[in-house]
Amino acid sequence: MRYLDSINSPEDIQKLNNEQLICLAEEIRTFLIQKVSKTGGHLASNLGIVELTLALHKNFNSEFDKIVWDVGHQSYVHKILTGRKDKFDTLRKLGGLAGFPKTSESKHDCFNTGHSSTSISAALGIARARDLNNEKYSVIAVIGDGAMTGGMAYEALNDGGRLNSNFIVILNDNEMSISQNVGGLSKYLSRLRTDPVYTKAKEDVDNFLEKLPKFSKKARAAAIKIKGTIKYLFAQGVFFEQLGYKYYGPVDGHNFEELNKALVAAKKIKGPVLLHVSTQKGKGYSYAEESPDRFHGIAPFEIETGETLGTSEPDFSKVFGDTVCQLAAVNDKVVAISAAMVKGTGLHKFSTEYPQRFFDVGIAEQHAVTSAAGMAISGMIPVVAIYSSFLQRAYDQIVHDVAAQKLHVVFAIDRAGIVGEDGETHQGIFDISFLNHIPNLTIMAPADYYELKHMLDFAVNKQSGPIAIRYPRGRGKTLMTNEIPIKMGKGAIVKEGKDVCILAVGTMVATALEAAEKLEKSGISAEVVSVRFIKPIDEKLIIRCAHKFKQIVTLEDNCRVGGFGSRVLEVINKNGFATNLNIMALPEEFIPHGSRNELLKNLGLDSDSVANSILEYFARAKAGFGG
Amino acid sequence: MRYLDSINSPEDIQKLNNEQLICLAEEIRTFLIQKVSKTGGHLASNLGIVELTLALHKNFNSEFDKIVWDVGHQSYVHKILTGRKDKFDTLRKLGGLAGFPKTSESKHDCFNTGHSSTSISAALGIARARDLNNEKYSVIAVIGDGAMTGGMAYEALNDGGRLNSNFIVILNDNEMSISQNVGGLSKYLSRLRTDPVYTKAKEDVDNFLEKLPKFSKKARAAAIKIKGTIKYLFAQGVFFEQLGYKYYGPVDGHNFEELNKALVAAKKIKGPVLLHVSTQKGKGYSYAEESPDRFHGIAPFEIETGETLGTSEPDFSKVFGDTVCQLAAVNDKVVAISAAMVKGTGLHKFSTEYPQRFFDVGIAEQHAVTSAAGMAISGMIPVVAIYSSFLQRAYDQIVHDVAAQKLHVVFAIDRAGIVGEDGETHQGIFDISFLNHIPNLTIMAPADYYELKHMLDFAVNKQSGPIAIRYPRGRGKTLMTNEIPIKMGKGAIVKEGKDVCILAVGTMVATALEAAEKLEKSGISAEVVSVRFIKPIDEKLIIRCAHKFKQIVTLEDNCRVGGFGSRVLEVINKNGFATNLNIMALPEEFIPHGSRNELLKNLGLDSDSVANSILEYFARAKAGFGG
Repeated sequence: MRYLDSINSPEDIQKLNNEQLICLAEEIRTFLIQKVSKTGGHLASNLGIVELTLALHKNFNSEFDKIVWDVGHQSYVHKILTGRKDKFDTLRKLGGLAGFPKTSESKHDCFNTGHSSTSISAALGIARARDLNNEKYSVIAVIGDGAMTGGMAYEALNDGGRLNSNFIVILNDNEMSISQNVGGLSKYLSRLRTDPVYTKAKEDVDNFLEKLPKFSKKARAAAIKIKGTIKYLFAQGVFFEQLGYKYYGPVDGHNFEELNKALVAAKKIKGPVLLHVSTQKGKGYSYAEESPDRFHGIAPFEIETGETLGTSEPDFSKVFGDTVCQLAAVNDKVVAISAAMVKGTGLHKFSTEYPQRFFDVGIAEQHAVTSAAGMAISGMIPVVAIYSSFLQRAYDQIVHDVAAQKLHVVFAIDRAGIVGEDGETHQGIFDISFLNHIPNLTIMAPADYYELKHMLDFAVNKQSGPIAIRYPRGRGKTLMTNEIPIKMGKGAIVKEGKDVCILAVGTMVATALEAAEKLEKSGISAEVVSVRFIKPIDEKLIIRCAHKFKQIVTLEDNCRVGGFGSRVLEVINKNGFATNLNIMALPEEFIPHGSRNELLKNLGLDSDSVANSILEYFARAKAGFGG
Repeated sequence: MRYLDSINSPEDIQKLNNEQLICLAEEIRTFLIQKVSKTGGHLASNLGIVELTLALHKNFNSEFDKIVWDVGHQSYVHKILTGRKDKFDTLRKLGGLAGFPKTSESKHDCFNTGHSSTSISAALGIARARDLNNEKYSVIAVIGDGAMTGGMAYEALNDGGRLNSNFIVILNDNEMSISQNVGGLSKYLSRLRTDPVYTKAKEDVDNFLEKLPKFSKKARAAAIKIKGTIKYLFAQGVFFEQLGYKYYGPVDGHNFEELNKALVAAKKIKGPVLLHVSTQKGKGYSYAEESPDRFHGIAPFEIETGETLGTSEPDFSKVFGDTVCQLAAVNDKVVAISAAMVKGTGLHKFSTEYPQRFFDVGIAEQHAVTSAAGMAISGMIPVVAIYSSFLQRAYDQIVHDVAAQKLHVVFAIDRAGIVGEDGETHQGIFDISFLNHIPNLTIMAPADYYELKHMLDFAVNKQSGPIAIRYPRGRGKTLMTNEIPIKMGKGAIVKEGKDVCILAVGTMVATALEAAEKLEKSGISAEVVSVRFIKPIDEKLIIRCAHKFKQIVTLEDNCRVGGFGSRVLEVINKNGFATNLNIMALPEEFIPHGSRNELLKNLGLDSDSVANSILEYFARAKAGFGG
């Protein structure tokens, strides 16, 4: 590629004129489509932000100036331009390039992101430190209109409005977050973009008004006619201006001339600036333009057809979505809530079949949970589907609004455990730990689709308090759990055994069964239990196991601290048993990106590791060191 | 009292005319001042909201219509009017009236609150359920301007802007949250309130404009002169209008005529309404008017002088505030951040001595933490002081922005453990559980002021990663900890013993020492350890204890699940000991209001309970059932 091949650092961009930049943008798009079609990843948002990223690197020095990428999945172009182009084949692979900004990866990444709506807070902190240190550089937060629906973005906007030094917030407005955008702000931005009056620059009006002759008696007559115009012109960006920001825009985010002009202006201003840039998600690749939500985060795909490779077998999200539809068909109190993850959570079908009972509240997990509490107290049964790592943001609302009032809210926690390629900010490895201590809450984990279906039925129709169901990303194996009905607080023995008992959480049951098969060959008979209920814990079952087995193994894809195993240990301790307990769980550390299987293996949670750990115990026991 | 005595339910208010309501308001103020001067509680906000509460009960039926009180500390007047007047002597006492709305207390309380900024979410959920159920009632969120700085209020405002049915948000604007309000929104509201042009009603302008003669050629001349006026008039409330709300206001919140007119209008509108009401915090009691922040939450006081009763001895918050000032004096990288709790956290002195290095970000815990991360990555050492139960709201930011990047942010967690009178939403009983599993984080707890001072020094000057220090509300005892310097991950033996070891967290060390004295009389020699570090846990110390003692007791004022004790148990299990471990901690339940001592006694965490529990163990051991 003529231009891209010669870009080794952002400095190389400075030399290019606008026409050359247009060619480079084209090449970057081709590069992105080629690479992501093989690795999978976030495509549509990166196709939309090519020109803006180039313009940023033309006008700022990312080694010196600080650019914070909100969420960060749109930082691919930035990565390509900052010396990481050649590593793109390793994107999201174990040991390879991360799908999000990483300070450990490049000096051009100034702050790690992953979750939504943090960029303005981080940038404001950086700007304040800069001012205290008497340093001079620009600080820029690049945030999408979707991320702008997250409350903490507003907290930061509000706080930043009083800054007296350079602080640039770039609103990358592509009219959608991940799926369609929602709420008052979205409508407002859409008016800013589409109303022909709005699109006139504000300065034009000021010029016009300054040129008018002096005030005359009859002048009042003007008011009524120009009312509409004046109203809109002055209303332009007023939402942000009222918070203390100088508003620029909307600027065409695919036009270098407009972008450069706006960035040059923003750079000069002492005080907070909001630069509103209009972009098109998926720009330049027809399939992504047509279905930007499908190409938001996508598996490897065929460039010519836009079709993803691999099977179309159902996964946990689909089973969840289908089941909620079935439950809603027979119970009209069932409603569903998503925080801007309609497709990802499998709720797309529900949103079509029950539009009146479906609420996408935007990237606003806190509000999702507390509005569910409001619905529950008024007799509805809300099913709130949020990814494990994003639910972290609603911890206080689960405690304070749902659990303390014992409200019947069903939390469907998707992407629990190791999620794989999205890496450390997206691993769902803390949910058991941050939920386990919350009073009144029930927590379940299905071993397979059957259990998920029946747990949802149980949660919706047989409970009256808060209840959470955690299940992983992707597909599961069908096990033999379908003969044992779900009963409150009761685990299910899926395979009997006599030497060792493996108490497994959720899909770790499949791993336990595989390990049991391997142990069989060494003459060890392992019992495997799908614990089903993490909380309340099945004390009777544990006591029975402690009587029957010399060793108990707990197996969970959650951080070991505060997890399921530690609770089993408490039951054993409380009841005075001396049974050996081996807690197998994730280590107390952040876990980087890589494939799910690779990571589980490296972390010692695959069936080989489980089998070997048990074999070692029995070898030690035989040698006389056991217990 | 002439009017108040005859008010037994809100219906009695309907009969009163405005003049009578003015007299009743006066009586309620006298009642509030008398009662709260004895019980302590939230005074200033309740004095400010008397007329608004009366007007709400005159225009709505709180048994049928739903009023959600944000935070809820301003619900005293509502409680007085809804049959709870006679219980006011029991306010905030064990078994008595709660200081916040409680659905369990009255059918007039429709949703429990306590933490800030939840009301609009809850109300929106209720409104949506109402519409799905085809019911007809009004839903009203009453939210202060302070709570409006919290992100989730904005998430809900944004989502609610698209509702097509009645939904009323009342912004109770008293120009302060708890201390002075901050940020762009605050400035905006202040302009709305104080600009004489703003205070004109919008309809007046519309009328004026409609009466103007037809457009003439010279009319353009008008524009320039009326520019300022038009600009402001149309900008009135536009922040809220852009989010989809019909804006009314600002209305004088102490004028029944204005209030009634606005509420009647708001009730009729199909769609979201924002009613902006101006009130004065502390209204009617001169001391509270002068120092509304001091009278926000106040201990019992003398009505004549406004002076609080009791001692003025330092407490943990003061020791913290003084120490941060001392550290800042010698290290210019130290900055402090508060989320609208400047006095409560003891940071008032710092804010005066180091105004450039102090940041009150508003009731915005999420942003507080992530902006601290931004400062830390730029070389500052931010000390973020947030109450334990409010820090729950920043859980994701601690994980995602601070811990994952190993940033040097110091969390000063005030009000950890049982806080007492503020009750279940304010108890700081989960922080160990929600922090313990976060990788890279260090957690400490001081036994006394000495340890707090030295831990702060350690955290600021001898660490480079995230570190949290939890300490309780109120005063502590000075113990004998000052001879053992703080060393990473090391506990301190404060009393040697030979029969049993009590590993105590923070101020539970004092309880443990008391228990040890009691045990001494029964011939049991107890060792007492201030564990100092909850994480990393002092494994060496625990192993030493397991070798030396038959029983180990852990003592902590945190929920037992995921707490310190469960981690000690893991160390004992991992190392193959059979030592008896007695985990003494708070039960897995929400804990209501009452005095700190009463609650700790009832929950089995006072020195008698500890001593008795150990005595029982030794009695059992002697009888042969021990271990």
